[in-house]
This record gives sequence, structure tokens and C-alpha cells, in this order.
Amino acid sequence: MIIVLKPQATEAEVNHIIEKVKSLGLTPHVSKGSERTIIGVIGPEDILRVTPLEVFPGVENVIPVLAPFRLVSREFKKDDSIIDLGKGVKIGAKEVVIMAGPCTIENIDSLFEIAREVKKVGATILRGGAFKPRTSPYSFQGLGKAGLQMLREVGNELGMVTVSEVMDSRDVALVADYADVLQIGCRNMQNFNLLKEVGATKKPVVLKRGMASTVKDMLMSAEYILSAGNFSVILCERGIRTFEDSTRNTLDISAVPVVKQLSHLPIIVDPSHAAGKWGLVPALAKAGIAAGADGLLIEVHNHPEEAVSDGAQSLIPERFSSLMGELKGIANSIGRKIS
Amino acid sequence: MIIVLKPQATEAEVNHIIEKVKSLGLTPHVSKGSERTIIGVIGPEDILRVTPLEVFPGVENVIPVLAPFRLVSREFKKDDSIIDLGKGVKIGAKEVVIMAGPCTIENIDSLFEIAREVKKVGATILRGGAFKPRTSPYSFQGLGKAGLQMLREVGNELGMVTVSEVMDSRDVALVADYADVLQIGCRNMQNFNLLKEVGATKKPVVLKRGMASTVKDMLMSAEYILSAGNFSVILCERGIRTFEDSTRNTLDISAVPVVKQLSHLPIIVDPSHAAGKWGLVPALAKAGIAAGADGLLIEVHNHPEEAVSDGAQSLIPERFSSLMGELKGIANSIGRKIS
Amino acid sequence: MIIVLKPQATEAEVNHIIEKVKSLGLTPHVSKGSERTIIGVIGPEDILRVTPLEVFPGVENVIPVLAPFRLVSREFKKDDSIIDLGKGVKIGAKEVVIMAGPCTIENIDSLFEIAREVKKVGATILRGGAFKPRTSPYSFQGLGKAGLQMLREVGNELGMVTVSEVMDSRDVALVADYADVLQIGCRNMQNFNLLKEVGATKKPVVLKRGMASTVKDMLMSAEYILSAGNFSVILCERGIRTFEDSTRNTLDISAVPVVKQLSHLPIIVDPSHAAGKWGLVPALAKAGIAAGADGLLIEVHNHPEEAVSDGAQSLIPERFSSLMGELKGIANSIGRKIS
Amino acid sequence: MIIVLKPQATEAEVNHIIEKVKSLGLTPHVSKGSERTIIGVIGPEDILRVTPLEVFPGVENVIPVLAPFRLVSREFKKDDSIIDLGKGVKIGAKEVVIMAGPCTIENIDSLFEIAREVKKVGATILRGGAFKPRTSPYSFQGLGKAGLQMLREVGNELGMVTVSEVMDSRDVALVADYADVLQIGCRNMQNFNLLKEVGATKKPVVLKRGMASTVKDMLMSAEYILSAGNFSVILCERGIRTFEDSTRNTLDISAVPVVKQLSHLPIIVDPSHAAGKWGLVPALAKAGIAAGADGLLIEVHNHPEEAVSDGAQSLIPERFSSLMGELKGIANSIGRKIS
Repeated sequence: MIIVLKPQATEAEVNHIIEKVKSLGLTPHVSKGSERTIIGVIGPEDILRVTPLEVFPGVENVIPVLAPFRLVSREFKKDDSIIDLGKGVKIGAKEVVIMAGPCTIENIDSLFEIAREVKKVGATILRGGAFKPRTSPYSFQGLGKAGLQMLREVGNELGMVTVSEVMDSRDVALVADYADVLQIGCRNMQNFNLLKEVGATKKPVVLKRGMASTVKDMLMSAEYILSAGNFSVILCERGIRTFEDSTRNTLDISAVPVVKQLSHLPIIVDPSHAAGKWGLVPALAKAGIAAGADGLLIEVHNHPEEAVSDGAQSLIPERFSSLMGELKGIANSIGRKIS
Repeated sequence: MIIVLKPQATEAEVNHIIEKVKSLGLTPHVSKGSERTIIGVIGPEDILRVTPLEVFPGVENVIPVLAPFRLVSREFKKDDSIIDLGKGVKIGAKEVVIMAGPCTIENIDSLFEIAREVKKVGATILRGGAFKPRTSPYSFQGLGKAGLQMLREVGNELGMVTVSEVMDSRDVALVADYADVLQIGCRNMQNFNLLKEVGATKKPVVLKRGMASTVKDMLMSAEYILSAGNFSVILCERGIRTFEDSTRNTLDISAVPVVKQLSHLPIIVDPSHAAGKWGLVPALAKAGIAAGADGLLIEVHNHPEEAVSDGAQSLIPERFSSLMGELKGIANSIGRKIS
Repeated sequence: MIIVLKPQATEAEVNHIIEKVKSLGLTPHVSKGSERTIIGVIGPEDILRVTPLEVFPGVENVIPVLAPFRLVSREFKKDDSIIDLGKGVKIGAKEVVIMAGPCTIENIDSLFEIAREVKKVGATILRGGAFKPRTSPYSFQGLGKAGLQMLREVGNELGMVTVSEVMDSRDVALVADYADVLQIGCRNMQNFNLLKEVGATKKPVVLKRGMASTVKDMLMSAEYILSAGNFSVILCERGIRTFEDSTRNTLDISAVPVVKQLSHLPIIVDPSHAAGKWGLVPALAKAGIAAGADGLLIEVHNHPEEAVSDGAQSLIPERFSSLMGELKGIANSIGRKIS
Repeated sequence: MIIVLKPQATEAEVNHIIEKVKSLGLTPHVSKGSERTIIGVIGPEDILRVTPLEVFPGVENVIPVLAPFRLVSREFKKDDSIIDLGKGVKIGAKEVVIMAGPCTIENIDSLFEIAREVKKVGATILRGGAFKPRTSPYSFQGLGKAGLQMLREVGNELGMVTVSEVMDSRDVALVADYADVLQIGCRNMQNFNLLKEVGATKKPVVLKRGMASTVKDMLMSAEYILSAGNFSVILCERGIRTFEDSTRNTLDISAVPVVKQLSHLPIIVDPSHAAGKWGLVPALAKAGIAAGADGLLIEVHNHPEEAVSDGAQSLIPERFSSLMGELKGIANSIGRKIS
């Protein structure tokens, strides 16, 4: 932590801060420059982070030096985390993992049909929502437990790993009973109690980035899950909110290499929610793989015209299939592969 | 809803869409222009909103005409809603309501002291957090039930209305037992299950705008609470996330008049979280009143250097007191008043 | 400047950086902490700012300590700058200055009529555009020199100060010949050659904040003008670009107190361009004064339905007049005044 | 254009608008729905776009239907534009074009060395700045004409196309004399007079997206150049300004497929300015090609530690070379190629 003093800071003010730092068991390093005095406190920043040094008289600015996350950081764990999702699927290694399926689970026949189509061309994980966060209270809110039962049935029958969203701390046990991987949606990325609950399950978790969250915020939310004992966290870039209105959200493709530098956790890209329009999904999916993502989360629907949600951004199986061909080529050309 | 067709849309494609619209019980109006055909569907848009018309062949764009909210709208209720918060305090009428207190409840003595100070100069509502959403799992998470008991004790003793945040659907009953007004924090503005739960309580709710939420998103979240039967919702502008880094968030002061146009619900401004620095709070508080806000939510602490959270943005009682003097003058000059 | 090293930085890498700092004539302060070594360089940061220390082996991060601006800063000049605009009008002192008029100068009769109306109720500065930046090449681009002549005629006749935009470095002399104050539009805030040219004129300049510019960026652009010898710069907050779509831009009201802390220059608010809709202008104008702005820039038109640009955000004289009444009350209640 | 009326709009107000529309030579289509009346005007929207219909009594909202650009649109020209840059280089066809070189031209030896390195591995265009837009007036502003001479000499010697930025309408002729391609920087994307000037030259232009500009804004700026008679415009995505602070700007990778849908013009990606850090450049470059970009603009420097600008984001030739290998593989796997 660097404490920058105002030019006119008095000796007494400087001493008051030094005392405070020492009283916290830390060692201050004072440097007097021609324009400013600064006090460096090199050491465990967490103690200082919660001390409002900005309100101490004479302080102009407080600059953190260390990142606020620990367990998720590359420094804590140098090698990439490889997470076992069961049914022979691992994420974070050479193999790029494709998760596909409908936005919302509608009925078992449709789910089976979509699952078969995506599995045929290389998807190993089936996605499908049973609890749906909808901006309108009047929209369909998902099939709930009945949807989860369908998801498990189809996953087991086809040998696919399943992932489904959990929105409420009261539903964590239920969703964990039926799905192989729990998903935290972007609107809940900072629902800290929910993070603690999924942290307690030991189930793998896909943590989607919030629309107003920096990469560092996302890593702090992951820290909640790891600090609760669950190290199986997969980060997911799905677009942030900006002024650009030709897409639903702005896919922050840079988040992929940034996460790779800062953390050992795998990261996937969701091109469907970022784009909001199926015509843009293939380009974003290809960009995601090329940028180094460990997987993709893609919405596929066999009859988008009839989809109860997000039909506009769902690929039909034919387009998904031709996209998979291109994705495999890109993965190969950067030394990875898609089964 | 306006459906804009591509220039090359075929007759068959146009008919396919018309059929769809009719099958939903709606009446399409087709207009053929020199550059485009458009199909207008004037009527209940909710049915169309969940139909993914964008994926129908020949469609270029779908433009909603009506706002997606109903109960919160000015059209549903023409006059300003005035919400009774108990203990003689009402919000939404001529009187501007000041809510003040510490970010986090730390102990009963400090809470009493701060409450007395803010009450003395005109605050009628005491704020204080018992459950705290913290970006770091290692930060203090609040006193929980013990904090709520302190809040109730101080509120009752001083005759102040109390407001406190609820973060988890499992805690709604508990917080509702102790606090007069429930607060939904910005990170939970789209925690839809939590919205339904507070909607079921009939307690007044302060709903804070999410950092990536538009004014319309905020109104849709309020719609969740109203549609669950609770019409006592107070909206709160507290800053959105932008590229500007000299403040913690960018206070969107325009949200005040925009909400006044679109909705009958009262709106307050939280200058403390927007600014993130106490030195900026008075200017934003004054701007809030001048722009027409029905109240303010201000963090006040008697010893900011010792505050366990948000000390940097808390006013000391002396500064709060001098600010109140200016606020009263501004309120008067626009035809309102502060007690 | 604080240079933060990677945990694994070698002795040789540390020494390489120390050498570099010394070779620039600066003194490095090395602090070794438990997790990181940091090198503080307290002194003239400008030399280091242009040295790409981030690419030196072993460097993790480089953190500037001092602000990059000099002449515009409060430290350079402690007291508020009061700028004489001629015709008895000064900005930056107790008196709040109101600039009003049409977006675009259309003809002399209309300009006279609008000018008389706004002067009558207290505006001392007449705005009017002769060179218009339009997003479409097919839109009306302004009357050019003929418009400037009208502006001068009306200003002289009514004894009002005039302000008009200059868009091109080739037109600076022309606009300076006719207008009392030069305006740099938001799209040109970082047109550095244009800044140098207006810096060379000694005419007062209204510098509008760019839509993607931080407050610090705006101050750096002002620094260009001051460093060219012209200290008569008036900053203007007119909204930044965010995801919120109910206004044309998001008025960053916090920019007013932030500028007051960082700089001695006056700052005004343009509520018209921020709002984009006349119905929102009064609330934003009042908020601007309450937040401490030294003036306002408001679009007024006597026949908005016929305006060639920005009619939607222009106030009619009646509404401007009633707004002025409220503004005077607010100014008084914070110890300022409007003539 | 769709004009949405307020629920309480009177017959007289509706008629007033209809008259206005007719007086402009357009045909209104009135549709009365259960909740609103709307008036559709299908036809040349340009006339209406400059009419402030929002201020007409009874109007709630005005919604444009057609895009505001013409010449740049896919509808105007269905096939991809292929632009001949001279020296055998074309952009917009199957071949992906790599532009590389230093941010700023520093001296002829360094420029020769870098140019040879990038040419060796497949770059066909040499970039180098002689006029530099710098946020600080105290930073090096470029070598000007002397720099341009060096660029021409190296380009001619090595048979490479050259591209250099022009910042001022007064310098267009000078830069056009020396460089093969003119670059408009992001800060000048809406410097409309400069756009007109380069439009008059007939030289190919790289138009960089402004930091606060939507894709549609960028297309409107391109429309300025095309409407001045110059159809050789190459769009460039280089990042937009968002709240994310781990990169200099947020690369909006979606802009690539969005532009491909809306326009016939080629689009390239500048990963260097978006990232701001060399370590992130390769991932963004690969994503750009995978998303369908027609080229890349990459900063390469042989001694980044000594670079006078943007050293932090420049690749050294070795890293550029290994990146080129991966880029060629990705291009091949999506049916394109890099020489």
C-alpha cells in the first residue's frame, strides 16, 4: 500500500499515520520527495485495505500495490488448474471443452433432440436452465425441479456432463442433486451468500462475469468460492455492459489472456449472451478459442422460432455443426484440440 | 412492436410472420415503403416480447414500442405515490426525507451517538447495515442479528424509522422483524427471488440501482416487488459504473427526472456510494435535492478513521450538520422542505 | 512513480531498473517487503512517464503517484481563477454565469428574438453555432462566416458576450474575429493541434469534455491551452457516454466538485446536450448550480419544431424564464448569485 | 421513422403531426392500437431525421427504422470492397494483410531494422507515426516531415506499403505526399473537416474507431469520406472505453462481424492499442483473425525499453515472428491466408 500525502501535510499528520500503521503491526517506509512525501507499507495489505486511510488528515491518495485475491492467483498456484467434471471430461488442459444446449429446458423430447445433435459433433457438456433469471416478472421462470430431472435423464442417457444455473441459496442442494456442474449467472456474481453456498458443495462451478464487473471483481467472487473450500471454479466471460448497442453486451475478449496471467483457473467464453444474435455467435466463438479460452458455452436450439427464451441468439444444430468444424481447425493451429 | 423486414424479404416470409402474429391473437398492420416493409403490431406487447421474431426468415430488426413495465408506470398511476414509513415519516410528498447513519452497525454506543447527531439536524431515518455485501471474503461481513437488535433499540428510543439491507432470501423475515424499511443493495437489484420475497412482506423497500442497470432495468426490478403485492417501493440512484475513475461510481443525476417522468414511485439519491470520498458528498447531495429527489441516503460516522467499512466516504456529524443547512435552503427554493 | 516488481524478479533485473532510473537523473528508493520489492521514485515524474518501465524484465506494474497536469492544478494556483469575458462579465467568482441561445444560428431575426428573451431573464452570454459538427455528412453544417457576423451583430446590439464553436485549426482566426469566447466541442477535446491554436489566441475558451474522456483527460487538454500561453479556460461538463439510454449522454455531475478539488479553473455544466430532451433540462440545470458549477450553457429556441438542429433538447423562452427563477433561488441558498 | 404518441394525445395533436409529415412530401401511416397510436413514415428517413418530431405536442418517442448511412452500407454495395493499396497489396479479399512497425518513427536506422524484421515474416505494410497525438503537451510530438521522409525511403527500399497518421486538416497534403495510406486516429474519428479533407485526396484511409463511438458512429464517419468521393476506406477496431481497467481499452471484437453484416468495407483490428501491454497482444491478434478481420495493425519495436512512445505495448521482432506463425494457421483454418 502506498500512502501519498498532500504537499502541505504537516509533520504531525505524517506521524499520526505512521503510528496507525505501526499499531497494525506493519512497517512503514517513508520517502520524502521534492513534491510529495509518500509512505510505503510493504506487507500484508489486507489489514490496511479495510482501514480508511483516505480520511486521515494530510492524506491525498491511497494506492494498493498487491492484488486483493490470494487463492485464485497465479502466485498461489503456478500451474493451470485442471478440473475434473466427471464422465471423462476435464477442463483447463489441452482439450477445449464445448458446452451446448438450450437456454431454457422446455420438455424432454426437445432436450434429447438438441443434446444428441450437439453431442454428435463434439460437445461434451449439456447446458439447460431450469431456474431462469428474467428481467420481467411476467416472463416464464423455468420448469424448476421438473426441468432438472429432464436434464439428469438426458445427461445420463447420453453420457454428457450437465450444467444448470442456481439462482437462490435455498436451491443449491436441489440443483447440486441433479446437475454435474453448478452455474452462477452474471446477475448473481456478487450474491456473496450464494457464492458461499456453492463453495460448500464441492461441485464444479461455472462463475459468469457480472455485467458491471471487472476481471478483478470476478476473481474476488471466485475467491469466495475457493475460500469456502471449493477449488473447482470455471470462470466465464459473457460480455460487459457498454454504450455499444449493436450487440446485447460487449464481449471482453481480453479477459481471456488477462485471467490467464492473473489466475490458475480455467476460463470459458459464452458468445451467445454477449452477441444476443445468432448471426454473430460463430465469429465470437472462434475469437474465444483463438484467444486461449478453455471452453465455450453456446446456446443451441432445434426450433429457435418456438424457444421460450433467447431464441434470437440460439444456433440451429446445422450451424452449430459447421461452426464446430472451424473451431477444431483453430484449436489445432494454436496447439490445442477439440474432441 | 415494429417488425422491420429486410429489403429482400420474400412474400412468403412476410406471410409467415403475419400468420405468427395472428396465431398469437394480435393484429398486424403492414406498411410497404420504398426501402422496407414493416409490420406494426399495436397491442399487448408482452406476448410478442417473448417470441423471438428476430429469428424468423426475412426479419431485420424488431423494435419494441411500449415500455415493458406496467404497475410502476405513470400510466398505471398518474399521481406520485406517497409511502408511509411509520413513526410519522412519509416519502414522496413535499417533504424531502433524509436517511443517515453508519455504513455498518459496529456497536450500540456508536450507533446511538451517530443517530442522535443526525436526528438533531433533521434526519428522520436511521440507516445501518447488519448484513454487509463485501467484495472480499476476508472482510468483516456484519454483526447480523445482533446488529439488527441494536438498530431497533436505537430507532425505538429516538423515534426514528430504521432501514437495513437484506442480502439473502433466507434472511428476509429476520430483517423485516427488526427494521422498518428493507434495503435491496445494488448487487442484488436483479436477484429476482429476493425481490419476490420482499414483495411478499408488505414492508417498505429501498431498491438500489444496479451498477450496470439502466433506469428501465431498475423499474423492471421494482415491477417484481409490486407484482408480488407490495407497492411501497422507494427507488435509489447510487451511481453506475463508467470509465471515470475519480469517483467510485458515476452518479447518474438524470435518473431522478427520468424516473419522475416514467413512474409514480419516489426516488432518493445516495451520494456517499457514488462519490466514494466524503469531500464530494455535499456537492452530490445538493445536486440530488435540486434535481428533484424525494430523499437522500447519506453515510455519517463519528470516527471515520475507525469505521469498519466505507470510512472514506462517511461525513462526520459536523459536516453533515452544515450540509443540512444548505439542503434546507435548496429544498425551499424549489418548493419543497426538509423538516 | 512506484515500480512494483514481480515476486520472482532477480537481483540483476532490480539493478537494471535502478541503473535506468539513475541514468535519468532520479533517485530510486528500494523497499523489500515480504511479498514484493518496490522501487519508489519521488520527484519529477514526467521523465519517467515517457519511459516504458513496464517492459523492463521483472517489472509487474508501474503506478504513477503525481497527477500529469501542472499549470491547471490547484497546486500551481491555489485560488480560483476568475476569467474576464468582457462586457462586464466574469466567470469563476461568486456570480453564476448563464450562457443561452440556439444550437445553430439560423437567421438574424430568430437570433435577435432568442437573445432578447434570454437576456431579459438574466443570461449574459449568447451562444450560437456557425460551424456545426454533425454526425451525418448530409446534415446542415452551419452558416459559417455569415452566422458569425449575425452573432457579433446581435451580441453588440444587446451588450451580450458571445460564444461560438471552432472545429478546425484553419478557422480559429476567423471565429476569434467575431466571437468573444471560443468553444471547443466534445469531439475535438483531444484535437491537440486545435488546442494549440486556440492557446495562441489569448481569447477565453470553453473546453467541452469529450464523451470518452475522464476528468483528468479534460484537465490534460486544458493544459495544452495553458501551456500555449492562454490561461482563460472554462471547463464544461456535458455528459459522458455510458450504457444508459434514457438520456443522450450521462451528465457526470461529480465532475463539478472533482474539478474544484483538482484545478483552479472555472467549470460550467451543459444540461442540454447531456439530456437530449428538453423535459430533463431544468432538473439537470438546477443540479449543476447546486453542485457548485460556475455557469450553465443552455440551448433555447423560440420555435423548437422548426430548429435545424437539436430542437428536441431546446427550451422555449417561457420555460427558460421559469427555470431562471428557480436557479436564482438555489444560487442564493449556497451563497452565490445570478444577476 | 415510427412516431409513438402519448396515450393522452389529442386528435388535434395527431393531425398537426400528420400535416407536418405531409408537408415534407412523405406519407404517414396511422395505426391506432389499444394503448397507443403510432404513425409510421416509411420512406426517405433523412428528411425526418433532422426534424425534431420529439418536440411536437403529443409525441412520446420517435424511433428510426432505417440506418442513417448509405454509401458504406451492404445494401448500397452487396459485395465486399477490395481496396488496392499499391505495391501489389490488396485488402478485403481472401488474403489477410498485416501492418506492423513502430508507434513513432524515431530514426532511419531503427525504422529500417524493424521494417526488415516484420517484412521477413509476412508483414506487407509498414506503419510509423510522424505526427503523434499525445495527451500531454510535454510529450514528444513526432518528427513531422522528417519522419515522413524516412518512412517513404524505407517503404520504397523494401517495397512495402506505408501508413501514417494525419491529425490536422492542414497536413493532409503533406502526409499524402509521403505515405501510401492515410490514418485517421481514434481521437479524430469525428473531426469532420479532417474526414472531408482525406475524402478529397483519393488516397486509401485507415479510419480508427473513436473510444466513445458505436460501430454505427464509425460507419457514419466513413460515410463522410465516401460522400466526398473516396471509397477506399479501411475501418479499424482498436478498443473502446469501458470501466475495465486491466487493459488500456476494451477491444470490441464483435465489431468485426457487425461491420461485415452492415457494410462492404474491410475492417482490421489493432490489438496493440486495445491491450496497452505487449503480453496481451498475441491473444487479441489471434482473436481478430479468427473473428474475420481483413488485417491487423501491430506495434513492433526492436528496443521497446528505448521507445519514445507506447513501448509497453510493442512486440519485439522475435515475438512478432512467432505470433505470425500462429496467425497463418488460424487464417488457413477459416479459409483465408497470410502471405
